Amino acid sequence: MQIIKNYVEENRQRFLDELFELLRFPSVSADPKYKDDMQKTADFVADKLIIAGADKVEICSTDGYPIVYGEKIIDSSLPTVLVYGHYDVQPPDPIELWKTPPFEPTLRDGKIYARGACDDKGQFYMHVKAFELMMKTNTLPCNIKFMIEGEEEVGSDNLGKFVSQNKSRLKADVVLISDTSMISMENPSIETGLRGLAYMEVEVSGPGKDLHSGVYGGAVANPATILCQMIASLHDDQNHITIPGFYDGVINLSEEERKALNDAPFDLEEYKKELSIDDVWGEVGYSTIERTGIRPTLEVNGIWGGYTGPGAKTVLPAKANAKISMRLVPGQDWKKISELFKNHFESLAPKSVKIKVTAHHGGTPYVTPTDSIAFKAAYRAIEESFGKEPVPTRGGGSIPIVALFEEELGIKTVLMGFGLDSDSLHSPNEKYDVFNYYKGIETIPLFHKYFAEMSK
Amino acid sequence: MQIIKNYVEENRQRFLDELFELLRFPSVSADPKYKDDMQKTADFVADKLIIAGADKVEICSTDGYPIVYGEKIIDSSLPTVLVYGHYDVQPPDPIELWKTPPFEPTLRDGKIYARGACDDKGQFYMHVKAFELMMKTNTLPCNIKFMIEGEEEVGSDNLGKFVSQNKSRLKADVVLISDTSMISMENPSIETGLRGLAYMEVEVSGPGKDLHSGVYGGAVANPATILCQMIASLHDDQNHITIPGFYDGVINLSEEERKALNDAPFDLEEYKKELSIDDVWGEVGYSTIERTGIRPTLEVNGIWGGYTGPGAKTVLPAKANAKISMRLVPGQDWKKISELFKNHFESLAPKSVKIKVTAHHGGTPYVTPTDSIAFKAAYRAIEESFGKEPVPTRGGGSIPIVALFEEELGIKTVLMGFGLDSDSLHSPNEKYDVFNYYKGIETIPLFHKYFAEMSK
Repeated sequence: MQIIKNYVEENRQRFLDELFELLRFPSVSADPKYKDDMQKTADFVADKLIIAGADKVEICSTDGYPIVYGEKIIDSSLPTVLVYGHYDVQPPDPIELWKTPPFEPTLRDGKIYARGACDDKGQFYMHVKAFELMMKTNTLPCNIKFMIEGEEEVGSDNLGKFVSQNKSRLKADVVLISDTSMISMENPSIETGLRGLAYMEVEVSGPGKDLHSGVYGGAVANPATILCQMIASLHDDQNHITIPGFYDGVINLSEEERKALNDAPFDLEEYKKELSIDDVWGEVGYSTIERTGIRPTLEVNGIWGGYTGPGAKTVLPAKANAKISMRLVPGQDWKKISELFKNHFESLAPKSVKIKVTAHHGGTPYVTPTDSIAFKAAYRAIEESFGKEPVPTRGGGSIPIVALFEEELGIKTVLMGFGLDSDSLHSPNEKYDVFNYYKGIETIPLFHKYFAEMSK
Repeated sequence: MQIIKNYVEENRQRFLDELFELLRFPSVSADPKYKDDMQKTADFVADKLIIAGADKVEICSTDGYPIVYGEKIIDSSLPTVLVYGHYDVQPPDPIELWKTPPFEPTLRDGKIYARGACDDKGQFYMHVKAFELMMKTNTLPCNIKFMIEGEEEVGSDNLGKFVSQNKSRLKADVVLISDTSMISMENPSIETGLRGLAYMEVEVSGPGKDLHSGVYGGAVANPATILCQMIASLHDDQNHITIPGFYDGVINLSEEERKALNDAPFDLEEYKKELSIDDVWGEVGYSTIERTGIRPTLEVNGIWGGYTGPGAKTVLPAKANAKISMRLVPGQDWKKISELFKNHFESLAPKSVKIKVTAHHGGTPYVTPTDSIAFKAAYRAIEESFGKEPVPTRGGGSIPIVALFEEELGIKTVLMGFGLDSDSLHSPNEKYDVFNYYKGIETIPLFHKYFAEMSK
């Protein structure tokens, strides 16, 4: 442990400078205009893996953005850890709400503010530095492989193909990912589950062109009004989702499991204060922790139609659109849910409008077995570096790739995240605490140590 | 009549060239970036009035955009006609749907395509040319005054003040406006009523910033979802508007009046075909003509919130907005309706969100008395120039100023419009038939002739 602390101490500033360099690349995978920056980011990651001591580093091209691979095999008889991360980030908008530019990382009271600071550049880069640390201090206790992709924020469309085509190269005993959160640094936790995702886009179209709302209003279906009516009908008055079959197969937790989940430290007043809301909202019969952890949800991520400029335009819009995504829990299949949504949404449409429903992407829910060696190794590593036993939690987010690893490679994933829910992931002013960054770099080598030991 | 036809014939090309020049000014009153163009447009109108022979031409500044005034008093004992029009136009968006640029007027099979071609540049300019014609041919039979404003499309906010401060200057016996439509050139008609307007903007705000829809989705009220639910609740399953008191005071037509209205030539299949819709929509118990003519309506003119860019962003938006306008009928007061809407909309909001409702502008409904000299003069003028008796109709649009004239100046308005519902007012590819333009220039002098004669 002392070797680790010393090395981190000696390289403190450089570790931070390198992360800042990485954060300056506007690697937004959702927006084609950042194509070149995506390539540059991949190059940067590859270079750092080589410098850290990785072999066979390769920027693997795909039909989309490239995947950076690298490995260090010290002894084929030792266990192998496959580290996954992603170098792409969410779009920065609404950009006007950022206190400092999203791609000009800024340090304020111990926090790094930048898009991707926590999700996931700050977190996957801890693994690159921890790897460097183990190599330079000759403490790497097992084989290690890196797979850092560039399409996680848009559904990892090309990763599945890559994984199935590279099964032998990716052969490992466990996947290790830092792309999730802890309750707090005082209350370390490990996420044991992730929700799945089904992301849809809908278009309601009426007349062939925008119409004068005075001349035609009241006699021609208004796509914006109809879209609102259709979206409103997707929740009932108890905030249950009304799509037929949506809850079929949902694996409900036992009373004990629910109790354990609700025992995690949580202050509702703090929660409301932090989000500046007067009241929470959600499915009747479930706590806030349950609503975001073990229950499926349906959210409008974006909606637009008609005139949205300054002043007033008396128009009846020709069409209206919305982006709607659903978070799924174990027992739900995202492809089936996407189909159910499509069929139901189309069935809601009156004859006076036309509907187009397209699926953006999806991901399967996942639950980590807490009795696995890998989970126990993560548990011990965190307990040692934090000096406190971590609490098992259920994460509300999704990492579509996790379930895929199990299907394609037949291995489990451990979610050892060091972020905080307050890190504003996907929001303006995303941040990552410098403390968490170094803490992660110190904890990761311990995971490898215990995983190697317990695998003997 | 022959004198008129000859003069129009001799100046055919020039009349068209001048209109094109006028249409090239992007005089969009809703968008501040066109401020300079608004001034240039006013200058152009003033120059043309002077050239046509008007006296006391003045560009009257207001707190908003200027009002162009001009007059010709030939004999104070003769009746005076006050011509009203507006030189401002609707925003051109969605601009990508225009076949040719909105501010580069283009002639295609006998139609002038440009923003404002019909609403209202093409129509008020007919009066400028008709005035020139009467002056040059010494056939002006009465006094005439022009008041051409620049804020009609944004609610004529400053016209009311101008009118009340210029009562003596604006003294007249009737107001003549060409800013409405006919059924068709084969079926000439005169609008005897206009709907009022109440234009609102609403904002639903939830968390202080956009949130990660996975981490918070399902536990925090989504402003976009809530806005949809609130909008959906504004119509019941019969498409009646649910705002308490909304229909109070609505003056219903007698069965005879309704019958007369429904006797106007109207082909539902043609209507649907022209709008490329499979079915009409609206308040149960009323025909399409009634829904757009004699019934109040509520339309979503624009809606926006969350991520609307390419691809997928899993965000729970901090807020969502909508522009919502209501068309009003005689018996409804727009200020009262705006208040009813505000109170009702705010009452719909759950505790988990905050609501902001602001009123953009409004206008009072109006009905023209068909037994007035002015209406009869318009009737005879159209009958003579079209060779067919015009049909009285109810227009769905609104010209807020009409009711104001009656209040402030104590005079009635005649709506002698030469547009067509198919002119795409407020839509991409707005057009005005060259035929209608010249027809209007020929018909207007006849109105003045008969109005002067019958006033004796």
